Amino acid sequence: MPVPSNLNQNNPRPGSYTFEQIPSTDKQAEAACQRRLDQLTKPPGSLGLLETLALRLAGIQGFAPHVNAPAVLVFAADHGVTDEGVSAYPKAVTAQMVANFLSGGAAINVLAKLAQARVTVVDVGVDADLTHLRGLVHGKIRRGTRNMARENAMTREEVLAALDTGRIQACEAISRGADILCLGEMGIGNTTAAAALVSCLLPLDVSASVGRGTGIDDAGYERKCAAVGKALQRQSQASAQSHSLALAPRDAVLDVLQALGGLEIAALCGACLGAAARRIPVLVDGYIVSSAALCAIRLDPAVLPYLIFAHRSVEPGHTHLLKKLGVRPLLECGLRLGEGTGAVLALPLVKAACAILTEMATFKSAGVSNTSGGTT
Amino acid sequence: MPVPSNLNQNNPRPGSYTFEQIPSTDKQAEAACQRRLDQLTKPPGSLGLLETLALRLAGIQGFAPHVNAPAVLVFAADHGVTDEGVSAYPKAVTAQMVANFLSGGAAINVLAKLAQARVTVVDVGVDADLTHLRGLVHGKIRRGTRNMARENAMTREEVLAALDTGRIQACEAISRGADILCLGEMGIGNTTAAAALVSCLLPLDVSASVGRGTGIDDAGYERKCAAVGKALQRQSQASAQSHSLALAPRDAVLDVLQALGGLEIAALCGACLGAAARRIPVLVDGYIVSSAALCAIRLDPAVLPYLIFAHRSVEPGHTHLLKKLGVRPLLECGLRLGEGTGAVLALPLVKAACAILTEMATFKSAGVSNTSGGTT
Repeated sequence: MPVPSNLNQNNPRPGSYTFEQIPSTDKQAEAACQRRLDQLTKPPGSLGLLETLALRLAGIQGFAPHVNAPAVLVFAADHGVTDEGVSAYPKAVTAQMVANFLSGGAAINVLAKLAQARVTVVDVGVDADLTHLRGLVHGKIRRGTRNMARENAMTREEVLAALDTGRIQACEAISRGADILCLGEMGIGNTTAAAALVSCLLPLDVSASVGRGTGIDDAGYERKCAAVGKALQRQSQASAQSHSLALAPRDAVLDVLQALGGLEIAALCGACLGAAARRIPVLVDGYIVSSAALCAIRLDPAVLPYLIFAHRSVEPGHTHLLKKLGVRPLLECGLRLGEGTGAVLALPLVKAACAILTEMATFKSAGVSNTSGGTT
Repeated sequence: MPVPSNLNQNNPRPGSYTFEQIPSTDKQAEAACQRRLDQLTKPPGSLGLLETLALRLAGIQGFAPHVNAPAVLVFAADHGVTDEGVSAYPKAVTAQMVANFLSGGAAINVLAKLAQARVTVVDVGVDADLTHLRGLVHGKIRRGTRNMARENAMTREEVLAALDTGRIQACEAISRGADILCLGEMGIGNTTAAAALVSCLLPLDVSASVGRGTGIDDAGYERKCAAVGKALQRQSQASAQSHSLALAPRDAVLDVLQALGGLEIAALCGACLGAAARRIPVLVDGYIVSSAALCAIRLDPAVLPYLIFAHRSVEPGHTHLLKKLGVRPLLECGLRLGEGTGAVLALPLVKAACAILTEMATFKSAGVSNTSGGTT
């Protein structure tokens, strides 16, 4: 299995992945942040989600949270399951969109520019030769996954290599100064993989996890449901045969990723884990990145406090997933594009949460009366 | 009735207001915008609310909408109904917060700075002598409204003067180059006035229009409901006695504003009308600005397409109001602060909608295949 040369140095050996310790969040900073929020010149709690977010960022970054250098990581890969006719777009669009990202014409480029965020595009498994593309991070593990409706999407080595590619890319962005990561993806067919993962891990009926993706018609929707159903049945039979209850929870999750996941989804999962291990918050985009985040949470629940869910996708399975995790996303904008667009759109709210905490006057400093009628 | 000297020159005579023609939106620009959106490198409609917003802005501003110079107008005034014990904060907080706005310590200052928006604070009726405050626009019409539970909050002349102050401030911001207005307010007791207006105009039960405002306790909530109930009863009796069905619709709305409104609410209403007459979009903040927007819509329905509802307030009446108007707000962040904070927080989404339309590549220019499988 080829490991790209520019990722080799941090990769202990091809197809291996070392789980890192994820620190717990700083409860003292959270408490200090809550005290400060209650002293600011506004009714307590009146900034709603911004206050919740400020508390969470304080828990991650300490008392004076900051989001000055956001980085966008877009992982791209293809999916063998497109052979089942599950997408409105041909597979070739994955490579074409990667080129579009590099020339700056995609939605993620336009939105990242507005948010002053740097975009890095990583090929972890596009089914095309992209070696000629300048500016692309060449981390291809294989040219697309296998068709999960018929066989495992990946080998265990491929899953581990993809996790490690994600981790390394998170580390590189952080070492370049990123203080928050916005995760995005591109991969024709990847809402099918996300639906299969969510159905298996939550668990959730196929009818609830499968949506219209980029906009497939009724016949395509039926094919998509059928493909996810077949993949789940195959995975469940293989799982029952191979080990039943003997498997460690982490191995069971890796088995699921291997059977149903995507190379970019595994990389996104590794990026979540890698960022959390370094106390860096992650803005989770829509359904596909959330499915990767779900895998990360099942691999290590300590990652959850580092994940900020940016928006609620139109994909119906996303709402089930968010509900199961007990999280409320920052935006409800009816997005279903991916690329990290929702994550980047939520950046101004994250910046606002930081600014409120660090720049607003207190009742005392501004000479404003509080509810008790006096100037405190 | 004093009309402030710095507003005199544009005001034909004290207490008068001339309704201006509001142009219809540009359907051709909307159609051209829709065609362009469908050529951009994304599945059709996949940017959800951003696409809806781009269409609306095109209808207002023409084919290449832009939001480069946002202006925030915060109108401040006091409310006689605070005598009924309807707020968690003392009335003095209105003047204290005005001073806080001018020294840059309030939430609206912090958020406007992030969004690179200029904040103008206008005293239309604060119950304190603020003549010493530098940087404040002195447009005081009277020191607070009368207690609407007992008598009309304003005279007709005061309502018209406040409408005109709002219109003039909108015009001044636009003449300084503003290409979008974010409207905000400050006024202890003004959720009570907003609830009364919404209850009267929608109509809506008092139990549904009255919320907790800045965070009043159960006893205060009962007093607030009682005050709104009394004001509504008084207004309805006066309305029945004075003219019954003989009144022109516009006069009937002015009567309601006069009986139940606030000086800042009337000014906000005038600012909506004035901006729309000049084809400038307005970002409507929470419950109070929305109640002013509702008055504007009832005074001239042509204003509606120019109003962009920024967020859904925690105030329960706001959801009823938005539903009645058939609008979906951009943000659902649990805000209940006012000042224009929600309007300013939504600015990045508006900028994003403009940027998508003007900066993204098309399928053709980027060489990306569309759903039909070919490169169009």
